[in-house]
Amino acid sequence: MTEASRHRVHVMGSRPDIQVPFQEIRLHDSPGGKPNTPIRLYDTGGPGSDRDEGLPELRGPWIDERGDTERYPGRAGTVRDDGRAVARNGQRYPAHPREGLPPRRGVAGQTVTQLHYARAGTITPEMEFAALREGMEPELVRQEIASGRAILPANVNHPESEPMLIGAKFSVKINANIGNSSVASSVSEEVAKLEWATRWGADTVMDLSTGRDIHTTRGWILRNSPVPIGTVPIYQALEKVDGVAEDLCWEVYRDTVIEQAEQGVDYMTVHAGVLLRYVPLTARRVTGIVSRGGSILAAWCLAHHQENFLYSNFEELCGILAAYDVSFSLGDGLRPGSVADANDEAQLSELRTLGELTKVAWARDVQVMIEGPGHVPMHLIQENMRLQKEYCHEAPFYTLGPLTTDVAPGYDHITSAIGAAMIGWAGTAMLCYVTPKEHLGLPNRDDVKAGVIAYKIAAHAADLAKGHPGAREWDDALSKARFEFRWEDQFELSLDPDTARSYHDENLPAAPAKTAHFCSMCGPKFCSMRISQDIRDSAAELETIEIGMRQKADEFRASGGEVYLPAG
Amino acid sequence: MTEASRHRVHVMGSRPDIQVPFQEIRLHDSPGGKPNTPIRLYDTGGPGSDRDEGLPELRGPWIDERGDTERYPGRAGTVRDDGRAVARNGQRYPAHPREGLPPRRGVAGQTVTQLHYARAGTITPEMEFAALREGMEPELVRQEIASGRAILPANVNHPESEPMLIGAKFSVKINANIGNSSVASSVSEEVAKLEWATRWGADTVMDLSTGRDIHTTRGWILRNSPVPIGTVPIYQALEKVDGVAEDLCWEVYRDTVIEQAEQGVDYMTVHAGVLLRYVPLTARRVTGIVSRGGSILAAWCLAHHQENFLYSNFEELCGILAAYDVSFSLGDGLRPGSVADANDEAQLSELRTLGELTKVAWARDVQVMIEGPGHVPMHLIQENMRLQKEYCHEAPFYTLGPLTTDVAPGYDHITSAIGAAMIGWAGTAMLCYVTPKEHLGLPNRDDVKAGVIAYKIAAHAADLAKGHPGAREWDDALSKARFEFRWEDQFELSLDPDTARSYHDENLPAAPAKTAHFCSMCGPKFCSMRISQDIRDSAAELETIEIGMRQKADEFRASGGEVYLPAG
Repeated sequence: MTEASRHRVHVMGSRPDIQVPFQEIRLHDSPGGKPNTPIRLYDTGGPGSDRDEGLPELRGPWIDERGDTERYPGRAGTVRDDGRAVARNGQRYPAHPREGLPPRRGVAGQTVTQLHYARAGTITPEMEFAALREGMEPELVRQEIASGRAILPANVNHPESEPMLIGAKFSVKINANIGNSSVASSVSEEVAKLEWATRWGADTVMDLSTGRDIHTTRGWILRNSPVPIGTVPIYQALEKVDGVAEDLCWEVYRDTVIEQAEQGVDYMTVHAGVLLRYVPLTARRVTGIVSRGGSILAAWCLAHHQENFLYSNFEELCGILAAYDVSFSLGDGLRPGSVADANDEAQLSELRTLGELTKVAWARDVQVMIEGPGHVPMHLIQENMRLQKEYCHEAPFYTLGPLTTDVAPGYDHITSAIGAAMIGWAGTAMLCYVTPKEHLGLPNRDDVKAGVIAYKIAAHAADLAKGHPGAREWDDALSKARFEFRWEDQFELSLDPDTARSYHDENLPAAPAKTAHFCSMCGPKFCSMRISQDIRDSAAELETIEIGMRQKADEFRASGGEVYLPAG
Repeated sequence: MTEASRHRVHVMGSRPDIQVPFQEIRLHDSPGGKPNTPIRLYDTGGPGSDRDEGLPELRGPWIDERGDTERYPGRAGTVRDDGRAVARNGQRYPAHPREGLPPRRGVAGQTVTQLHYARAGTITPEMEFAALREGMEPELVRQEIASGRAILPANVNHPESEPMLIGAKFSVKINANIGNSSVASSVSEEVAKLEWATRWGADTVMDLSTGRDIHTTRGWILRNSPVPIGTVPIYQALEKVDGVAEDLCWEVYRDTVIEQAEQGVDYMTVHAGVLLRYVPLTARRVTGIVSRGGSILAAWCLAHHQENFLYSNFEELCGILAAYDVSFSLGDGLRPGSVADANDEAQLSELRTLGELTKVAWARDVQVMIEGPGHVPMHLIQENMRLQKEYCHEAPFYTLGPLTTDVAPGYDHITSAIGAAMIGWAGTAMLCYVTPKEHLGLPNRDDVKAGVIAYKIAAHAADLAKGHPGAREWDDALSKARFEFRWEDQFELSLDPDTARSYHDENLPAAPAKTAHFCSMCGPKFCSMRISQDIRDSAAELETIEIGMRQKADEFRASGGEVYLPAG
């Protein structure tokens, strides 16, 4: 069996256009001809797209039939939307062919969020789709969204996305960051990273571009993304004011948010909790402020000696997001950048403010999740989660790692997978990946894969620990295949079949080895699995032994005997 | 600054021949010329050896001056000691030049273990050396050894080893497995893996060879190893009976233990807890018995319908180990090989038996640690540790991982680093590494490094969470260097400076970038660290703001106000 054993299959919902994708892995029979049930895994890869065409608009009909949105001309773009460098030399990368079509928004300021529908008691097709993906009841999904404990990020201008849930009751999700900087990377590289990240299991992708072609890169990403896309609008806003933080203002920011909402960004990181009075709390930290957004806003606050304009204009921002169903990802601008700074007053003060803002957004039916650290040693992780739940009224938590030690640059996918697994178990809904390049450089294709795989591991380990329904089935199927020497099944069931297969082949490349009842670790004469199989094969005999042993043990105990350890 | 910033330095103990090595990293000044204290890290690399000569016999004088050992002719070796293949074709790899010198053992059956000395109230030079490595008092070390809560593995025939401690009160240690199999690897490759593993931080190394040249490979490893060496004698014993488990017997096993004790093996995995009556408990498991040693002994028990000969001859075995100071590593032959089998009755029954055997060994002053799983989902890890402590009277726990999910072959260094960090925090004394090749093939040089680094991360994260004295200092020094853009210091302080440096250079290779106050992630105009530095630089101003803010906040609260969120 080869790649052909993985199939994209669809499960139909209550209507024919709800077709929920899964990766189905078909398995060989067990020894003795006993068939094995195929395993279905959550699938983030999407149907695949021709980049120029983009993906089909899966959600288009669902949005249209609700009748609460309108098409409108949209904001007039300028060359400055693509950053200073492009504005200077005028060489703009070609826009995606679908760019410039009139965007959607809520009719006359109407709220078109999934939270709004959920509170009104409506199970949208999006909710049903996501429920089927999770193997849960649509009504439970509606309730979780209505309560604010889960979000379903789904901008009306990103109809290509396949609905998914971020919430503690659902499987733990992972986000992959991509995006260029002023010193590296191009549009097509970023789209390639998107495709690569979702192929390996990224549930959402954040485009953190800060360099040239910001607007255009985002357009190409959105039109080809089957997963929700997040951004940090302040990065682009800063580009619009030539990188001078002091020159930022609410108007430039609002313009940027509308620009991105019209393109289809599903959630936006907003550092509205970086208040002027919290900035001094960071001065004596080991690593000050490490969030880019946080430091930009802190610099602005200090320069103007005014309150953060995202905080003072938060209600208006809610109104904008409500009209497109953009979800808030309330940013932790003061997150700790070292274990020394974990759970300090700066971090916790901001977290309390994010809790206040959550209520403001909820009052406007805007979906909210809360971003979290960062660098946190293991013994402070649970406390972090507990405080987030308490301060933020159970809005979903979305953490970056956390890294459990600072001493391993080059391996921070591992330092942070440890923290991510633990905080995921504790209730974090989505884990933002960290790649091996963290602190050192921009991730390339290999780094993106390494980060995604490490985080799929963390998320699945958390699902197992949480007892998420169906999580164990995957592990058991793989372990059973391993025990029965169904090598190809073991490879296909692996999180990364390519790597599993190639590692095996380094020692035993020949095709017969794929059906061999041994492996290179022990060799043919010395295999615990084989011996163990023999034990099982004589199960009937074993039952007899077991019964006999029990009788003997009973007799032994009845005679008041002690454990027999002969000398010599 | 280059490699030269890492120096091997020595701290002298109470006598001139106690010279404890550390890696010292000398740092650049902070901005403004403020000097930074050098950081000293625990060093496992040893002084380096000419392979033919081997390492100097650091502990030789200490052993001799105790006057309780004697040299004797030793066991007569045969070509069969190097396995069937060598016996067949007679082509034996040349023995290490020091092989064949008369070995040491306790005079007239005298016990020469560190446990014996500790109980007698003696602080040996070994204990003092190890205490200095840990930054702890020698008397505490003596007490921990005397109580059985820690071991100091130190065979009198491995005087080359640098004394170290395995115990919950000390820093968490890691073990690297090396060794050939019948299908891969050679003697010099294994010695190279040993050097490589200790260079990156392995605290002990297990030689798990099962293929040709078993005896000779072990000799080369021991003479060149600055760390304790562990083995699983049943592997070689099985070779001596042509791989037929049923043909094993106590005499062949005893002969093998003596052979290995004379060579200098510091600890031996002994699967004496695999009792006949436990074998049937594994029949309905998803993955049966996955320990090689466990399955060999289970097969033997079933074939003979007799109790495990390691159990029935355990007292005699204690006597042998006591004469060389070989420590027991009581093997978990029934450890779970899948999350489905974790903490089941087979595993826990064996663990209870290991607890009984611990008392038997302690009664003979033999040092003991207990091996643990394996595959354990996160929510069962703490319970595992709790039961081990309870059943095994706080003897040190030495776990393989545990892997927190089965679905990621090719990445089991990560699935298991998560579990290892958690169980290390919970009190496990030593973590046996898992490499990316686990379940798939024998680790090569790169895999050994990947495994060691992942486990150094897990162990250090555990030390941080345990609040181990001095652990945080390393993280803080690195984070401070990062925050101050001391790139070279950051690289040198990294667990793996080579990788950190090369990742940075992929994006910004030029030398000036090493002193740049920015990195490739954000570029020069957009750096949170720089902005944050600016904030700190205006600390005086900040103090004023802080005071003013507090006053305003007090006024605000006094006026009974609510949080102000202006509309629009």
